[in-house]
Amino acid sequence: MEKIIELSYALDTFYLLMSAALVMWMAAGFAMLEAGLVRAKNTTEILTKNVVLFAIACIMYMLVGYNIMYPAEAVNSFWPGISFLLGEDNVAADVIASGGDTVYSNMADFFFQVVFVATAMSIVSGAVAERMKLWAFLAFAVVMTGFIYPLQGYWKWGGGFLDELGFYDFAGSGVVHLCGASAALAGVVLLGARKGKYGKDGSIQPIPGCNMPMATLGTFILWMGWFGFNGGSELIISNISEANTVAMVFVNTNAAAAGGVVSALITAHILFGKADLSMTLNGALAGLVAITADPASPSPLLATIIGIIAGIIVVFAIIGLDKIKVDDPVGAISVHGVVGTWGLIAVCFSNTDATFGAQLTGIATIFTFVFATSFGVWYLLKVIIGIRVSEEHEYQGVDFSECGMEAYPEFTDSSKG
Amino acid sequence: MEKIIELSYALDTFYLLMSAALVMWMAAGFAMLEAGLVRAKNTTEILTKNVVLFAIACIMYMLVGYNIMYPAEAVNSFWPGISFLLGEDNVAADVIASGGDTVYSNMADFFFQVVFVATAMSIVSGAVAERMKLWAFLAFAVVMTGFIYPLQGYWKWGGGFLDELGFYDFAGSGVVHLCGASAALAGVVLLGARKGKYGKDGSIQPIPGCNMPMATLGTFILWMGWFGFNGGSELIISNISEANTVAMVFVNTNAAAAGGVVSALITAHILFGKADLSMTLNGALAGLVAITADPASPSPLLATIIGIIAGIIVVFAIIGLDKIKVDDPVGAISVHGVVGTWGLIAVCFSNTDATFGAQLTGIATIFTFVFATSFGVWYLLKVIIGIRVSEEHEYQGVDFSECGMEAYPEFTDSSKG
Amino acid sequence: MEKIIELSYALDTFYLLMSAALVMWMAAGFAMLEAGLVRAKNTTEILTKNVVLFAIACIMYMLVGYNIMYPAEAVNSFWPGISFLLGEDNVAADVIASGGDTVYSNMADFFFQVVFVATAMSIVSGAVAERMKLWAFLAFAVVMTGFIYPLQGYWKWGGGFLDELGFYDFAGSGVVHLCGASAALAGVVLLGARKGKYGKDGSIQPIPGCNMPMATLGTFILWMGWFGFNGGSELIISNISEANTVAMVFVNTNAAAAGGVVSALITAHILFGKADLSMTLNGALAGLVAITADPASPSPLLATIIGIIAGIIVVFAIIGLDKIKVDDPVGAISVHGVVGTWGLIAVCFSNTDATFGAQLTGIATIFTFVFATSFGVWYLLKVIIGIRVSEEHEYQGVDFSECGMEAYPEFTDSSKG
Repeated sequence: MEKIIELSYALDTFYLLMSAALVMWMAAGFAMLEAGLVRAKNTTEILTKNVVLFAIACIMYMLVGYNIMYPAEAVNSFWPGISFLLGEDNVAADVIASGGDTVYSNMADFFFQVVFVATAMSIVSGAVAERMKLWAFLAFAVVMTGFIYPLQGYWKWGGGFLDELGFYDFAGSGVVHLCGASAALAGVVLLGARKGKYGKDGSIQPIPGCNMPMATLGTFILWMGWFGFNGGSELIISNISEANTVAMVFVNTNAAAAGGVVSALITAHILFGKADLSMTLNGALAGLVAITADPASPSPLLATIIGIIAGIIVVFAIIGLDKIKVDDPVGAISVHGVVGTWGLIAVCFSNTDATFGAQLTGIATIFTFVFATSFGVWYLLKVIIGIRVSEEHEYQGVDFSECGMEAYPEFTDSSKG
Repeated sequence: MEKIIELSYALDTFYLLMSAALVMWMAAGFAMLEAGLVRAKNTTEILTKNVVLFAIACIMYMLVGYNIMYPAEAVNSFWPGISFLLGEDNVAADVIASGGDTVYSNMADFFFQVVFVATAMSIVSGAVAERMKLWAFLAFAVVMTGFIYPLQGYWKWGGGFLDELGFYDFAGSGVVHLCGASAALAGVVLLGARKGKYGKDGSIQPIPGCNMPMATLGTFILWMGWFGFNGGSELIISNISEANTVAMVFVNTNAAAAGGVVSALITAHILFGKADLSMTLNGALAGLVAITADPASPSPLLATIIGIIAGIIVVFAIIGLDKIKVDDPVGAISVHGVVGTWGLIAVCFSNTDATFGAQLTGIATIFTFVFATSFGVWYLLKVIIGIRVSEEHEYQGVDFSECGMEAYPEFTDSSKG
Repeated sequence: MEKIIELSYALDTFYLLMSAALVMWMAAGFAMLEAGLVRAKNTTEILTKNVVLFAIACIMYMLVGYNIMYPAEAVNSFWPGISFLLGEDNVAADVIASGGDTVYSNMADFFFQVVFVATAMSIVSGAVAERMKLWAFLAFAVVMTGFIYPLQGYWKWGGGFLDELGFYDFAGSGVVHLCGASAALAGVVLLGARKGKYGKDGSIQPIPGCNMPMATLGTFILWMGWFGFNGGSELIISNISEANTVAMVFVNTNAAAAGGVVSALITAHILFGKADLSMTLNGALAGLVAITADPASPSPLLATIIGIIAGIIVVFAIIGLDKIKVDDPVGAISVHGVVGTWGLIAVCFSNTDATFGAQLTGIATIFTFVFATSFGVWYLLKVIIGIRVSEEHEYQGVDFSECGMEAYPEFTDSSKG
């Protein structure tokens, strides 16, 4: 019996670690997606942001965030207690004494959680691309990953008031994706659109991405990583029922992405008359974001339909945000915010534990809190150090002003601008 | 004892899910490989095809294909019964009652199977690149992934007549790779060569790929994903003997790829006097395709030799197909078809269960059936909607006509054509 | 009890295989990193080198290396015995009779070891990029992976004299990274700098990499693969204590990389006034290399600090090597050699089993032996076939002379040179 507890513990820990490695891999996905969708002259900078934000997330969440989100003791369901030291791992004798109730390594849990924070922050970098100062962005990342994300995460996954209320969010359509999108929206509102994006006559200028294979690769990386993101969020796999659930999560995650691809392709084709690759990629991501709120309850057919609807929504959301001049170069706010909201609502169609009331409360809480606090932080940064590069630097490209290094020195003619 | 059955079930399910995630990743590999080997002006379209075909495969196989390939009841060994609903997963009590005979989640099995269909279809997209209409291709994908692939898959893996006959195909040199290549060949025959590929004087014009790092990345992704493709095909890992077999499969899969690299490099060097990277990459893939028919029986040394022969075959196959004016931009028919056939025959050298008769019957059946039905479908599509883009669009590049979006708008001079 | 031994064996084998697949994936990481950091005209060749060296490593290590490094019987702790055939795998009955002392498949162990050799060799290719003859490089790879690496590997991991001495190197800061860097340094010294790198007036000419997204992707791939490299090096995961250790290794590996990113970014910013992406990427790799010597003992906070110091060291090492005109296009000698040394020394700060004496002896032994033997081999190659391409070919780019194929035929203007 002892050996069985040991084996269960080992299997669940391994499952969590492999899942987390896949989520870590999503950082590469965001980096490639965003690098593919911006112009060549802003590529080095977006890559730098993506690498550094991941590092900042790891450090801040270790020092502060994890302790806020999963406090040993909470003051109440709104204010977590804070214990600033990373706990020791489980002692083998205690695990065995628990009779199997302690299921995996604390360190594995920490690692799984830390890569989620980075995902939330990665969402922001795409939306503010091509015009934000690097260091202002990194300063925001410190606050976001150390404080804003963990506090709202505590409310749901740490056992706080949203959890008590019955808000349902399996792997983070709200806690991760809507959270990231809300922070991004606050930044974009304060930052304004890229020069030349919106004409004075109301025209919208498309600014094509410079490297579509990179963007496609990024999408595939994210799709793959999502099996860790959603698949790992069951946290336990070591018995028949949990193993079945994890398998269902894999199937549904994939099905929703597939649905999103097809519907976004068709929707864009109806609207534009062409097979729009960037919309199709966003359709895949939309399907993934939507199913994240509950990939365990729906049938694969329903998961596909949730993805199909997500793929339609994302196309109209991207068009709609452009109409109101919210300039989001990669469509992150639409994919993660608008569709994240859809995913949280869709839970009610398959999961009898979820209520519209609780879902709407969760959505409203996350959006309001993250948007407001992020707006405050962005605003402070704007006042103190400025968040937008100069017009000259924007024209030259932020690679030159921020990084002093071109991404493709031999492929582009610097005179093209 | 119950707990041990639960743990076995969980481990096998997890192993199948991780393997499937690696196979899903191969979709990215094909996308990058093909994007790297076509010209810049046809890149967005090939990316779109790769993303969308994966989504179509997932949806069609869920709705129809899986039920054809693995029917609950079969009419006979040629016609499977069809049950159009995805079954429920195993009930824990039944698994335990089975005493361990039910080894993994049905959903995990479905997920593992669904990514295989996508692989077969991915093979087609490369061969017909740079001149086929996007929507005709997608229509073909619907029929291929919903009907053609599943029916011949049933004959072997669903327990149909090829299986009864003793045809041996561990992970799909025939069922997946030869199948995909046969469908591709039918398409290429009806489609014809790219403009400018073959001169009226019999000359062959090389059309170099536009992005060799992408092609190399794609090959590495496929190589990695193949550990899931072959390694997962053992389906069970939860005891010593199965674990040893899975480990042998990993070693041999890797060894064959390594052998293919070295022999293709040397063969191409002897023929062309240069270290030809695209041949070397195809050598790796050839080794992988060849060993797929039986990665469990040979010793690592024999696996290396099987790969070495595959690497030589693929170089001559690519040259040979070019001589008879079968225009396959990425060499997919040679890699997956010609070498797939080699792999199926090579089984006889290490596996005493295999006979030349059964292997040749399997090869002939798969090729004839898939080529004939695919030819029929491509022909119908040609008559009804046309399968080839206009000469003008081919000259401009299909990215413009089909997708309305350049892949590298800042790197290429559109006037170059 | 038998079933428990079977399950443990299966889980440990699976864990080793998945870890090895991640390490294999690092080959793609090195290929992309190096392809991104060289000029366009030398890209096809560096890709070819990376693919082929991996294949050579697999074949040579199977034929010779593994037997040298892990001999069934050793002559003594300096000269291993050599048995040239790959052993059979464990018999199930023997494993059960061992009562769980035989923990995993021999084939899985071989696969895990073989991908490590390839890593060591990958380090070399970057340092000698843009001017070395392809076939000289490949000839060196044969000797390195078949003989040099395995012999020094035997001294530590095969139970040889460095192991007996108490030299501590968990996953290979020395055995893999310092080893690779030492071989690279010997090559670079004999090869000389690229034309135009160092002016006669003592000036240093920066030669920017042509594709920063590729370099970033490569870094992310390496980061991900390192979870297999370090995480798998515990070799066993099937009980609570081992599972905790593996989890700690994942956390610390990630923490050190994060630390390296932040410190290299800041150090480079202080020195150059810009956010230098290539230094930041090297900072991540430096953190990973440093923690590799002992990712199990430090706390996550200490691991972060070890990474921070590594990130600072790597920036100064790169600048320093440039000052003494050691031309290493990708910084491999700094990242893997200088920082590998730091990692081996840092072990003493957290691991009470390690002594400065043993660590310094290990460092000196590996460096001296690998540098000397590599120098000898490079020197012989130089005399016999030459190791450097002609000045004309270097100017044209080695892609043309060695591979006959451009990497980006449509993106670069060949007249740019």
